[in-house]
Amino acid sequence: MALKDAQVGTRNEAGIATVIGSLKQSYGERFQTGEAFRAQHAHTTTYIPSQVPDGVFFPEKSDEVKAVVSLCAQHRVPLIPFGTGSSLEGQVNAPYGGISIDFQKMRRVLEVNSEDLDCTVEPGITREELNVYLRDTGLFFPIDPGANASIGGMTSTRASGTNAVRYGTMKDNVLAVTAVTANGEEVRTARRARKSSAGYDMTRLFVGAEGTLGVLTSITLRLHGIPQMIGGGVCSFPTIRQACDAVIMTIQLGIPVARIELLDALQMKCCNAYSGLSYEETPTLFLEFHGSEETVALQSAQFSEIAAECGGGTFHWTVNAEERTKLWKARHDAYWASRALAPQLAALSTDVCVPISQLSDCITQTQEDIAEHGLLAMIVGHAGDGNFHVLLLFDDKSTEAIQQAEAFVERLNNRALGMDGTCTGEHGIGQGKMAFMAQELGGTVDLMRQVKRALDPMNIFNPGKIFHL
Amino acid sequence: MALKDAQVGTRNEAGIATVIGSLKQSYGERFQTGEAFRAQHAHTTTYIPSQVPDGVFFPEKSDEVKAVVSLCAQHRVPLIPFGTGSSLEGQVNAPYGGISIDFQKMRRVLEVNSEDLDCTVEPGITREELNVYLRDTGLFFPIDPGANASIGGMTSTRASGTNAVRYGTMKDNVLAVTAVTANGEEVRTARRARKSSAGYDMTRLFVGAEGTLGVLTSITLRLHGIPQMIGGGVCSFPTIRQACDAVIMTIQLGIPVARIELLDALQMKCCNAYSGLSYEETPTLFLEFHGSEETVALQSAQFSEIAAECGGGTFHWTVNAEERTKLWKARHDAYWASRALAPQLAALSTDVCVPISQLSDCITQTQEDIAEHGLLAMIVGHAGDGNFHVLLLFDDKSTEAIQQAEAFVERLNNRALGMDGTCTGEHGIGQGKMAFMAQELGGTVDLMRQVKRALDPMNIFNPGKIFHL
Repeated sequence: MALKDAQVGTRNEAGIATVIGSLKQSYGERFQTGEAFRAQHAHTTTYIPSQVPDGVFFPEKSDEVKAVVSLCAQHRVPLIPFGTGSSLEGQVNAPYGGISIDFQKMRRVLEVNSEDLDCTVEPGITREELNVYLRDTGLFFPIDPGANASIGGMTSTRASGTNAVRYGTMKDNVLAVTAVTANGEEVRTARRARKSSAGYDMTRLFVGAEGTLGVLTSITLRLHGIPQMIGGGVCSFPTIRQACDAVIMTIQLGIPVARIELLDALQMKCCNAYSGLSYEETPTLFLEFHGSEETVALQSAQFSEIAAECGGGTFHWTVNAEERTKLWKARHDAYWASRALAPQLAALSTDVCVPISQLSDCITQTQEDIAEHGLLAMIVGHAGDGNFHVLLLFDDKSTEAIQQAEAFVERLNNRALGMDGTCTGEHGIGQGKMAFMAQELGGTVDLMRQVKRALDPMNIFNPGKIFHL
Repeated sequence: MALKDAQVGTRNEAGIATVIGSLKQSYGERFQTGEAFRAQHAHTTTYIPSQVPDGVFFPEKSDEVKAVVSLCAQHRVPLIPFGTGSSLEGQVNAPYGGISIDFQKMRRVLEVNSEDLDCTVEPGITREELNVYLRDTGLFFPIDPGANASIGGMTSTRASGTNAVRYGTMKDNVLAVTAVTANGEEVRTARRARKSSAGYDMTRLFVGAEGTLGVLTSITLRLHGIPQMIGGGVCSFPTIRQACDAVIMTIQLGIPVARIELLDALQMKCCNAYSGLSYEETPTLFLEFHGSEETVALQSAQFSEIAAECGGGTFHWTVNAEERTKLWKARHDAYWASRALAPQLAALSTDVCVPISQLSDCITQTQEDIAEHGLLAMIVGHAGDGNFHVLLLFDDKSTEAIQQAEAFVERLNNRALGMDGTCTGEHGIGQGKMAFMAQELGGTVDLMRQVKRALDPMNIFNPGKIFHL
């Protein structure tokens, strides 16, 4: 299904040729059409085949973005924004060709307002770079999707990750964006006030739009104080159910955990093998607490009681940074530990999100599915959000294995939707999840199409993503 | 300016007559065209003149909402959703006539999922009713805009209020809505998962749309655990600047205050007089802390230190419910205390919101403006958000006084916009703030218009609000 979706469409050869000619003339080395550049900008990390753009443009300022949007609008040529290329559902593919806009030369921090806990950055900066920049201010930007993604990309896929349970997702942490719209003009969606009731929430419309409504040129982010103290801990549980019960109680009691991650038994086995650890090979929760010395101790004690009540093992925790890194090593290395299990295989990371009351059932049924179909897959969950990932190891050279993987993803999504969940908690729709989103949201997708047609009447912004028009 | 905006437009007399005839026949007493009903449904609380609808419909279920939307779409007749009528910017006015849909018969709680901390309700239920319903579940819905508004209305104006500083606004607490759209069909914008990256955030598009994109028929809300303990406190400061500094430090340190309200000196004077209190008549902060016994004590101690550092007086606080109510009495009665100062005058409540670093300047300059122009007005702020209200007492029978009030509001908004703030933190745009929003958001308003035209091509949903097409 994903494959088919990715291939619909036609190319506007004449327009593309004109735009290429013009960009070559105007920007010299900052516009590249070489094979290697193009391939690099359509890299997908799944079975979705790469669809390369016709050229890659590296703007240095928003005026250049305005110029390229106007040019592409005039000639009806697709524009695909590109951050670091870490998206997982084919978001940077160019199914109808066109120009990839790579933001690596637009990665400045434009403004930091420490008193207001906000900053404004260009889209190309990565979250790690931003946090290095902020270090001396006592503030940090908490959203951590795993990859060192760009802020523009994270905004566009409505990213979240391990500590969304405490700090929210990009939806909650973007105060405003500036975007170049279809007429080549730049708009700013909001001021810096922490809240506003002024008209439609256009900020939230751009967050998660995957570049289909305009090209972001700056993002104003909410920042948070670096916690005085960070506590980390680990606790094993006999079953997924018991681990999930502990998560639900933690959330219900309003304990402000910063991270609460669930690794399943197979994942723990991989971690032990890869990192030379000796954890029990049963479902395990990894926690992090942020706060003052007192509140971190308090939260840890509260969780310890909850874990005991739910039948968990000893809750090991520490506020010592080195020991914390050690305790969390299994979680940090989870991806590479899984890959090491079968280095010859490709890895597909897919995600769904369900109401937390359903998390245990959804994971357990997914494990049964994996076993029943003889697949090799492990589960890591942002349990506090009801969001989990399956990392499926498969032979991407084998059509049969790809079909099996696709069938598994379909069953996984149907299962999540059947539990009033969503087909993606944080990866986005891209090309890979269009059919599931249609199933999930029905008539709401028609509203999205109407919005898209209104704001991008020529369908130049990342066409062929989220839905087909 | 507001007056002028409110008067643009034409009525579709033939369509209105047809729709009235049809609704009378179908719904009997549940459709009213009497003078009193109509007047009641266009009551405005400002100098914006009332513009009555042609009839008031009281649906009992969403099928009836679908039917009335289809009927009005067919005959191009405006539909104005109505909750409790507590909006402040003319949101329920009917500038082109049409049908008011009063949701007082749609106030059911459809579903509570305690484990997932969510519930789904019909739009007519008020926040107080919902909290009474939830009492036995250990959960509550925190958003408190002051008035006992309906959840539908609060969703549509993106309401917030005193404890948004901790729990966020309606933007953060609506998980999904169902809405009847222009084609008479009902869509659901999201599933119950706590987060999703599935396509455009249509939920957030309906939140704050003031009924201009469709008619809400249910709202899924995020709930929170009733805090084990609530601490309340009061602290006086010599100046607005010092009170605001204390607020900024509290926010920067990440102390999770549940409420942090600022009353200016005149407001305190009114409160003393009205409620027989003896507070210092200087800027005063009212705080509330939610948590366990330990965390409430900890937060209170932390704030106490901050207050001292900023030159505040003694921080009086308590966890005893009765004493807390006493400490907070001034804040709770603030509105009536102000009205009592000049009962013969009308009261206009207006709001702006600025980055918190600007709050002190914005309030101080506003007080100077009030003094300079010989106005009678007091200030109450949701200081943690940078949001404040001015309650202006004026003679609404005097054209000159109305003009003075309008001029003051204009200066207030220009001041907030000059500080990178917004023309409304929580009241919405309605008819009263269109010009300021245009000034605030520029080209973004054109995007809003494009969205409106796409989703409501016949302009039947609450026309003449937020912007003119």
